[in-house]
Amino acid sequence: MNIGIYGYGNLGKGVEDSIKRNSDMKLAAVFTRRSPASLKLATEGVPVVSADDILCWKDKIDVLIICGGSATDLPEMTPSLAKHFNVVDSYDNHSEILTHFKNTDKSALEGGKTALISCGWDPGMFSLNRLYAGCIIPDGNDYTFWGKGVSQGHSDAIRRIEGVIDARQYTVPVEEAVDRVRNGEAPEFTARDKHKRECYVVAEEGADKERIRREIVTMPAYFEPYDTTVHFISAEEMKANHAELPHGGSVIRTGRTGLGDSHKQVIEYKLTLDSNPEFTGSVLVCFARAVSRMAERGDFGCKTVFDMAPADLSSQPREEIIAHLL
Amino acid sequence: MNIGIYGYGNLGKGVEDSIKRNSDMKLAAVFTRRSPASLKLATEGVPVVSADDILCWKDKIDVLIICGGSATDLPEMTPSLAKHFNVVDSYDNHSEILTHFKNTDKSALEGGKTALISCGWDPGMFSLNRLYAGCIIPDGNDYTFWGKGVSQGHSDAIRRIEGVIDARQYTVPVEEAVDRVRNGEAPEFTARDKHKRECYVVAEEGADKERIRREIVTMPAYFEPYDTTVHFISAEEMKANHAELPHGGSVIRTGRTGLGDSHKQVIEYKLTLDSNPEFTGSVLVCFARAVSRMAERGDFGCKTVFDMAPADLSSQPREEIIAHLL
Repeated sequence: MNIGIYGYGNLGKGVEDSIKRNSDMKLAAVFTRRSPASLKLATEGVPVVSADDILCWKDKIDVLIICGGSATDLPEMTPSLAKHFNVVDSYDNHSEILTHFKNTDKSALEGGKTALISCGWDPGMFSLNRLYAGCIIPDGNDYTFWGKGVSQGHSDAIRRIEGVIDARQYTVPVEEAVDRVRNGEAPEFTARDKHKRECYVVAEEGADKERIRREIVTMPAYFEPYDTTVHFISAEEMKANHAELPHGGSVIRTGRTGLGDSHKQVIEYKLTLDSNPEFTGSVLVCFARAVSRMAERGDFGCKTVFDMAPADLSSQPREEIIAHLL
Repeated sequence: MNIGIYGYGNLGKGVEDSIKRNSDMKLAAVFTRRSPASLKLATEGVPVVSADDILCWKDKIDVLIICGGSATDLPEMTPSLAKHFNVVDSYDNHSEILTHFKNTDKSALEGGKTALISCGWDPGMFSLNRLYAGCIIPDGNDYTFWGKGVSQGHSDAIRRIEGVIDARQYTVPVEEAVDRVRNGEAPEFTARDKHKRECYVVAEEGADKERIRREIVTMPAYFEPYDTTVHFISAEEMKANHAELPHGGSVIRTGRTGLGDSHKQVIEYKLTLDSNPEFTGSVLVCFARAVSRMAERGDFGCKTVFDMAPADLSSQPREEIIAHLL
């Protein structure tokens, strides 16, 4: 299976790492909007191609994994590329997913291609677990906790404050809240009850740290609804202790069954990830296998993780899966 | 959707409870090999029918959920009923699943029906999570821990010992082993390292308790490979404290990604169930919805949970799922 990577940031590199670990896959090319000569891949002998030339690769790519940003890249890229390629993206703007779905569906159907949007872990594996758990236990409540992990959006928001050189924001679930849910309670939470935010900031020399701190903790939507702590650290400390991109979290559903709702049932799916982009990339790669199979069967148009039969994700033959995993 | 229940033990009752919680479903009839008059259902106005008359219901049942035992019932029942009905079973004899699959596939294809075997939580949701996690992280290890929960097979084994009136066996995961796995280690375990067994026994008056204890802890396969503790209790205590059927457990995959395998990734799916049969019944019911849809599409033959597109489990329309769960 020949895979193309479109965009070579953290996520693209995560996809590249995962392709190497799947023996039925091959990285065919990396496409970039930067100067191809400026990129040094981790895989030997793979061409780096200008994004402008991508249509020349129409017959050499089975699935193109689009590793762009959700804010401005993917809403354009995915529908436009889905006309010519089977594609997978990780579009994560939850409130706009239906629009993105419809745009991509139209293009993919026109081109006779299969497109999978909003793949990864949230949206993605977390969504799947919300669906499965909700179908099994209709009378219940869903809870999603994120972290402990680096939120790139929140880190970027801090970096835009005057006097800030660098910043890293960790989203941290409130343990007491997680414990109440695991215990089968059905509490109603505010944003503040569920998560807190820890910020590590490198400030310019002489900057007013109290003003920076205040600007962070009062920032609407990003920080104001949460308990936020701000630590000022040196650039060296940032590099030494905060260079990684860990993340994770839990999707928990609690509900009731039985006469008189007498029995609590708790379902939890939990991720503890040293590297968010490498995990996300790994999810995209195994779903790319399923996209390729659906395309071969003529099942075109836009799909979500909900449409993918689990067996299609696996490189193993069906009898093997039944004998060893069921 | 008209659902039939074949067999009205703990699992059949769990299925009945779940059907009430799904507004698109209706319990059409309960089929039994016992005298129909001896059964009192929890649902008003539903006929109890002798298993001998089941073929008269061919056109009135969309999916038949077969709630028989895996040892002797299901290997016969499922292939034979799959000729005439769309069916779901919870066959859990892991080493014989492929044989059961082939027998059921043949019948279902002959009858133009859709059959789902080995549904529930293990096999079932645990199997799905082993598949998903293994596809995402190919370089890793799987661990399944069961409990704390009642094992019916082990309880029955104790009851067969001379001098034993009643018994309840709890399978208990060894917490230190679970913690090591959650921590991303990749240990190799013996059976004893992973689980211990706690037995509560009501003995006949005057029975030799030390002999009973020894017969339990030395029983090959069932208890000998584990650290087993035996508590002798009164019949009243058994009834008061051990009447429920809780269970659960965790499927954990740990693996590595990144250059030099530098990043640990841990995926855990965890169930904490007050009632094992009610949870299993709830899983069977939502998968019955998917079976009905596949049958409507003409997708006949034997299926496993790996073949079922998650969206087919849900009563909600596709756009709702995309907008609210993705």
